[in-house]
Amino acid sequence: MKKLIAEFIGTFWLVLGGCGSAVLAAGFPELGIGFAGVALAFGLTVLTMAYAIGHISGCHLNPAVSFGLWAGGRFSSKELLPYIVAQVLGAILAAGILYIIASDNPNFVVGGFAANGFGEHSPGGFGLVAALVTEIVMTFGFLIVILGATHSKAPKGFAGIAIGLCLTLIHLISIPVTNTSVNPARSTSQAIFVGDWAISQLWLFWVAPIVGAILAGWVYKYLSPEK
Amino acid sequence: MKKLIAEFIGTFWLVLGGCGSAVLAAGFPELGIGFAGVALAFGLTVLTMAYAIGHISGCHLNPAVSFGLWAGGRFSSKELLPYIVAQVLGAILAAGILYIIASDNPNFVVGGFAANGFGEHSPGGFGLVAALVTEIVMTFGFLIVILGATHSKAPKGFAGIAIGLCLTLIHLISIPVTNTSVNPARSTSQAIFVGDWAISQLWLFWVAPIVGAILAGWVYKYLSPEK
Amino acid sequence: MKKLIAEFIGTFWLVLGGCGSAVLAAGFPELGIGFAGVALAFGLTVLTMAYAIGHISGCHLNPAVSFGLWAGGRFSSKELLPYIVAQVLGAILAAGILYIIASDNPNFVVGGFAANGFGEHSPGGFGLVAALVTEIVMTFGFLIVILGATHSKAPKGFAGIAIGLCLTLIHLISIPVTNTSVNPARSTSQAIFVGDWAISQLWLFWVAPIVGAILAGWVYKYLSPEK
Amino acid sequence: MKKLIAEFIGTFWLVLGGCGSAVLAAGFPELGIGFAGVALAFGLTVLTMAYAIGHISGCHLNPAVSFGLWAGGRFSSKELLPYIVAQVLGAILAAGILYIIASDNPNFVVGGFAANGFGEHSPGGFGLVAALVTEIVMTFGFLIVILGATHSKAPKGFAGIAIGLCLTLIHLISIPVTNTSVNPARSTSQAIFVGDWAISQLWLFWVAPIVGAILAGWVYKYLSPEK
Repeated sequence: MKKLIAEFIGTFWLVLGGCGSAVLAAGFPELGIGFAGVALAFGLTVLTMAYAIGHISGCHLNPAVSFGLWAGGRFSSKELLPYIVAQVLGAILAAGILYIIASDNPNFVVGGFAANGFGEHSPGGFGLVAALVTEIVMTFGFLIVILGATHSKAPKGFAGIAIGLCLTLIHLISIPVTNTSVNPARSTSQAIFVGDWAISQLWLFWVAPIVGAILAGWVYKYLSPEK
Repeated sequence: MKKLIAEFIGTFWLVLGGCGSAVLAAGFPELGIGFAGVALAFGLTVLTMAYAIGHISGCHLNPAVSFGLWAGGRFSSKELLPYIVAQVLGAILAAGILYIIASDNPNFVVGGFAANGFGEHSPGGFGLVAALVTEIVMTFGFLIVILGATHSKAPKGFAGIAIGLCLTLIHLISIPVTNTSVNPARSTSQAIFVGDWAISQLWLFWVAPIVGAILAGWVYKYLSPEK
Repeated sequence: MKKLIAEFIGTFWLVLGGCGSAVLAAGFPELGIGFAGVALAFGLTVLTMAYAIGHISGCHLNPAVSFGLWAGGRFSSKELLPYIVAQVLGAILAAGILYIIASDNPNFVVGGFAANGFGEHSPGGFGLVAALVTEIVMTFGFLIVILGATHSKAPKGFAGIAIGLCLTLIHLISIPVTNTSVNPARSTSQAIFVGDWAISQLWLFWVAPIVGAILAGWVYKYLSPEK
Repeated sequence: MKKLIAEFIGTFWLVLGGCGSAVLAAGFPELGIGFAGVALAFGLTVLTMAYAIGHISGCHLNPAVSFGLWAGGRFSSKELLPYIVAQVLGAILAAGILYIIASDNPNFVVGGFAANGFGEHSPGGFGLVAALVTEIVMTFGFLIVILGATHSKAPKGFAGIAIGLCLTLIHLISIPVTNTSVNPARSTSQAIFVGDWAISQLWLFWVAPIVGAILAGWVYKYLSPEK
């Protein structure tokens, strides 16, 4: 139960920090943090929680990560569903808190929420193929880094830095394509508030990250099996 | 006494670096560092002092942090008041030095000081509810990270990185809402120089961070008790 | 064989992340990540892979790095060619994936690919001498950091941070000069898609990085021989 | 002798990276790295060299650092002068290389070199008092962090991160005031090429950093003596 509360709090922090920085600070006139600031914020939610709750729950904060660790032989099948439920609930609470903060502003419109999308809902106008390829490949790379940095032969203690900054890297590349998901819980939490197109495109942000993660789990297990 | 001098110097550094970057460098034409640069500066004041004085005083630099560690069972009641006094005095000295630097410039107006506020004094025009929720939740997250990263089961040595970059993260999200406090000493130091509205709104930047910090202390103590 | 697959995946990640951020995100209107974001992305590809595959292949991801480690007495002659082939192939696959993503956008033109160049193809209009000096000196510094941070007397585990952020530093300085190579595999992968001038200037981005790397190998071996 | 070569190479890297990013990349149209990018570059020169040559020479790269360590009882009087000479020579070579690169561009004017100044030569128009206070206080903080992070009770291995990012922090605050020195070798190297006013203001960038550093050495020795 403590593991699930930790995953709940951690995913809450990921969505509040990552999507919060996007909604509240990215486009502030003149001084806004831009995509690079949002990328840093997403990464730092993971980096900070890795050191805070890593020793409690492993700090997945992301259904795709849980699937990838399972495929890589590092996580048990029976914990998969409870972890994912805790992650999605934490993400939705964060979206709710963010909604309360953002709507206490005369200029707020919910269309500004940080939902993921493709085609006309891609920030840079990228299509379905670009979105699918990007989300699969980015999550593949993310899980290679997660599986590698937490491997018993990797230097101890550094995994939180490598994994957090990997999420920053992924956002530096792909916000223009899909607004960057690689995390179905994060996507779901925003889609619920935006509704409409965000719900109808949500399938891609469950399927592609999980496919990329599982592929990485298999590849890494071949490259460097735990003894 | 050495602990209190360390807290004094550390909080001096936090305010000089964080508020100094905001006042001197954020809005420089074309090349200014923006909110993201200020966020990085605040975080780096804590990261750098964590390694410099962490082994002397624990490097709180913030009354809310001292309260949160106390609520989490990591800090004694009798040290609480002296620490807070040292922090507030260090912050005020930093504001004074910053005033000397900033006012040696023909374009300086004290209104440009980095005070915290809400309503018409929020950088992005956010109201009282947004300010309260933001400061409580951000300080809650900050203390979860502090309590977690300094826990005996967390990787050794990395706490300064996680905690410092957590303060960066918090600023990346919330500068537009309240100019980001999560630290009553930092808010007090700026309010003294700005006066007026900054003084009359100062109560929120003592109450909200301390409430958020104490909640986090209780939650973390449940999640992962020190043996 | 596992080493070569690791180098293949790692160099794939370097080019996808570094060149991908340049092509997709650097110039996004208003919110784009600029040269600083690209610099961070390149560095984080190396930082993340260092922790993920460092214990498998050493994480060179760059023919110049392999040459420099060889000159420094840390890498065997007979592994040199296979490593370089794996690096170049991984880089080319990344360029292909990036092409698929980028071209699923109505505004894409391949001229926007992240090729390296000098003279009229230097981002800031720098000539051949500037390009040669820059690429030699930057790769020299890169290898000094690589050889030093992985030395047996350096603190354990930190090499990935130092080396990754060194690549960030190099890009912060030199993107305006040559678009920054210091990595022949990265340059080759982009030149293949841009063709024309990028192919005819490619020689410099093999020669200069390798010269700088070998010089650093010799200097560091003198300064601090491994016992 | 190897120590002096290491200091020479390290200070070369500091000036080439820090001043190089300022001269070549800060003001690039639209995509330039701005003051925040320059701040990051300066910090990363120290972070990277700390891991590369820290175990050879201690990686001072700065006469004020050597003085501060001496005042703190960590560095011998008889090494002070040779270290400073090596640092200044390395800095001047870097300025020369930077001159070669920068002048291979039709738009180059040497006035764009990264000299330090006050009054009409302060980037933001700050006067002599602001410059003196800023350089003293910033170097004071820098040395507190250096002395603390390298103290025997501080976590092992992290000093390079804390010290490097401290230099980033200092630049985030004070580039608008003096273009940030805290390093007489860095100031001298640029003043030689700019001449004129840069030479006549150079005294401040020797005196103020060394005063701040020596004060910090005394304070830290009181706060946390090495046993």
